[in-house]
Amino acid sequence: MSATAPGSAYAPTERTIPSRGRKRATYDRALVHAILDEGYVCHLGFVRDGAPVVLPTLYARVGERLYVHGSTGSRPLRAAGGPDGGSGDGLPVCLTVTHLDGLVLARSAFHHSVNYRSVVVHGTAREVTGPAERAAALDALVDQAVPGRSADTRPPSARELAATAVVALDLAEVSAKVRTGGPNDEPEDLGLPHWSGVLPVRRTFGPLVPADDLAPDVAVPDYLAAF
Amino acid sequence: MSATAPGSAYAPTERTIPSRGRKRATYDRALVHAILDEGYVCHLGFVRDGAPVVLPTLYARVGERLYVHGSTGSRPLRAAGGPDGGSGDGLPVCLTVTHLDGLVLARSAFHHSVNYRSVVVHGTAREVTGPAERAAALDALVDQAVPGRSADTRPPSARELAATAVVALDLAEVSAKVRTGGPNDEPEDLGLPHWSGVLPVRRTFGPLVPADDLAPDVAVPDYLAAF
Repeated sequence: MSATAPGSAYAPTERTIPSRGRKRATYDRALVHAILDEGYVCHLGFVRDGAPVVLPTLYARVGERLYVHGSTGSRPLRAAGGPDGGSGDGLPVCLTVTHLDGLVLARSAFHHSVNYRSVVVHGTAREVTGPAERAAALDALVDQAVPGRSADTRPPSARELAATAVVALDLAEVSAKVRTGGPNDEPEDLGLPHWSGVLPVRRTFGPLVPADDLAPDVAVPDYLAAF
Repeated sequence: MSATAPGSAYAPTERTIPSRGRKRATYDRALVHAILDEGYVCHLGFVRDGAPVVLPTLYARVGERLYVHGSTGSRPLRAAGGPDGGSGDGLPVCLTVTHLDGLVLARSAFHHSVNYRSVVVHGTAREVTGPAERAAALDALVDQAVPGRSADTRPPSARELAATAVVALDLAEVSAKVRTGGPNDEPEDLGLPHWSGVLPVRRTFGPLVPADDLAPDVAVPDYLAAF
């Protein structure tokens, strides 16, 4: 490992140590990456006029950096330093990705829960202005949805690039939480007549729906056939 | 309809009118309810020490009110007016629920998108202290996961109730966004050789995983057999 290689875990900070449920918190870098790479939509939180705002948006991970993108006219992206009035100081954000894996049904109402994996990233979102990083980020956003897809599209035109703001958030202040397994019923409840266990929740894909105007000679590419 | 019945739509406000993508915004009450009722986990945003925080948490809808719950020791629930130091004024929050319905693959990178349904609720979360509303909210939180389940559990004990904070958020300042359908490719891109269409994304359930300690004579109840 080189001297600059990241460690195997993110360093906890005051705000990434949960006030409750600490035993479910983890800072493992590989696990954080895996949770992020399995997602498409994050929930991006920021403060506007003193009040919280949480918006769903697409994201992509490239190494230790996350990217989100949007119209240059969108309010949060402008605030992150866009050309139309951003301060240039960046926008404090909290970016959260959650996968629901199961509904946990305990004998007691109190111990009902869910199995899940989530990542919470705190930091400052900053607009990406370098053309090379912007292009790589936009490719990553397409490939986060379907790996390999960006090479099989018409790349952005100058006009499209000018209309798109790309914002970066470094993975530095990061935590994950994971719950797995069955219900944690109280010992005195084990004899109760209520069914207890887990109802797994999964995400499934397909079948593909071709565009109405897709020419009949355009085959489904290999990178999509896997779905 | 009585004079106090809510209208068929929420009234837009400055912060529920999006700066971009207005054509996808809707305030239809029945649609908002349907999106909320299909979800389990929301992303709850609030401001702590001037910075945004977004945490995934379970929620339930009862009429025009959402409930979330948690330990009385959790920081956001304390801030919403809990017994351990809350101001009693409530906590400004933004609560967002998102369903991903499909990955939209256009010929151009620029027109890649997702089909989704989301609801964003702005407001002030306030702790629920009345015993009857607290009990109804806790039942609703169990039934949001599996309708009918709360009647087939051991209800909360006095000790469990004392450890649980319930917070309410009224559905007043609410908007939804919905994208459906295929890619919106540029006319000049229609002849390109890239496959174009939608990869649907669905949530599936099961098969049930019984608890390790489930007695063999406890049958799967009817309300679970539907999954």
